[in-house]
Amino acid sequence: MVEDTAPARRGRPGHDRAAVVAAAIALFNRKGYDATSVGDLAAELGVTKSAVYHHVESKESLLAEALDSALGGLEDALVESREQDGAAHERLRRVVRRSVEVLVERQPAVTLLLRVHGNSPTERDALRRRRRIDAELAALVAAARDEGTLRSDLDPELVSRLVFGMVNSLVEWYAATGSLDADTLADTVVTLTFEGLDAQTPEPS
Amino acid sequence: MVEDTAPARRGRPGHDRAAVVAAAIALFNRKGYDATSVGDLAAELGVTKSAVYHHVESKESLLAEALDSALGGLEDALVESREQDGAAHERLRRVVRRSVEVLVERQPAVTLLLRVHGNSPTERDALRRRRRIDAELAALVAAARDEGTLRSDLDPELVSRLVFGMVNSLVEWYAATGSLDADTLADTVVTLTFEGLDAQTPEPS
Repeated sequence: MVEDTAPARRGRPGHDRAAVVAAAIALFNRKGYDATSVGDLAAELGVTKSAVYHHVESKESLLAEALDSALGGLEDALVESREQDGAAHERLRRVVRRSVEVLVERQPAVTLLLRVHGNSPTERDALRRRRRIDAELAALVAAARDEGTLRSDLDPELVSRLVFGMVNSLVEWYAATGSLDADTLADTVVTLTFEGLDAQTPEPS
Repeated sequence: MVEDTAPARRGRPGHDRAAVVAAAIALFNRKGYDATSVGDLAAELGVTKSAVYHHVESKESLLAEALDSALGGLEDALVESREQDGAAHERLRRVVRRSVEVLVERQPAVTLLLRVHGNSPTERDALRRRRRIDAELAALVAAARDEGTLRSDLDPELVSRLVFGMVNSLVEWYAATGSLDADTLADTVVTLTFEGLDAQTPEPS
C-alpha cells in the first residue's frame, strides 16, 4: 500500500482524490470495469468503502473522470492545432506528435478509453467524443492533402485510422520498453508517418 | 442459430468442428475467455454440452486452436519471406503486406491473440510464439537498414513495433469500415510504411 504524504481533502487521513482515481484506472484496466467494485478499489487502497466514497460519488464517476482525462488530452491537442496558423501539414505533424505525448503521459487512462464499448451513458458519451476526434483528425489529413503537401493517392480517412492506430498501439507495448523516452518515440512516429522507412535518395547537388 | 449444411463429422447432425471453433472465438472475444464456459458455447450454438465435446476436447483446446490459427498465419508469412531470394527490403514489404492479409482473413483469431495475457500454459506458449515473431520482424527491419535500403536514423525494434502496431490496430476498426477491400488496405499500409505521407517531390527530368 502506497501512503500519500500530502494532506488529504477535508483533513481526512489517507489517499487524496488523484490517488483514488489512479488506483481505480489501474484496477479497471487489470480486472475490467464491469468486474471491479468500489469494494475492490477500497481493498486495493487498504481503506474502507466509505473512505473511497469520501472522495468520489460512484464507480461510474471514476470512469467518467478517467475517460475525460484521456479524451481531454487529445481534444486539447486538436484545439491547439486549430488555433495555430500555418499549413495543415504542420498542424497535422503537431497533432501526431502531441497525441504520442498525451498517450505517454496518460497511458492508463488512454488504455481504458480504448477498451470502452458503450455499455453505459458514460461510455457512450466517451465514444461520441472519440468519433468527433477521429473525424477531425481525418479532416486535417484531407486538408493537408488538398493543400498539396500530402500525397493524394491514399484515402484520408484510412490514413488517419492507420496513423492513430499506430499511435494507440503504444498502450500495448510502450510500458514494456522501459528506457524509451517520449521525445524519441514522438520523433520516430512523426518521421515514419511523414517520410516513411525508405532510405532517402540524396538531394541533387 | 446458423445450421451447417455439410454433413457433420462421424455422421452426427448439427455443427461441424470449424463452426464450433468459429463460434468459440466470437464468444471469447465478446465475453472474455475466462468468463466463457463450454455451457455458454453450447447455448450459443443451440446444442448440448455433450454435442460440443463431440467436436472438441476442452475449452483450452479451442483457445489453442484459435491462437494457432492466428500465429500460424504470421509464422507462414515469415517462413515464405526467409525462403524468398532478394533484398531484405523486398522481403520486409512482402511480410508487411502478408500480415495485413492474414489479419483480414483471420480477424477474430488475431483479435483473440492480441488480448492474451499469459494466464495459462496455452496462453504463455502463444506469447512465446508472438515474441519470436516480433524478434524476427525486428531482425528483418535491421537487415533492410544494414543493406542501405531503409533509413538508418530510426531504431529497428521501435520501427517494427510501430509498423506492426499499426497493422494490429486493424482488429479494432477494420470490420466497421465495411466495404474496404484487403488489397486497398494492404497497399495503403505498405505505401504509408515505406514512402510516408509527404507529397513526393517530382523526379528531376
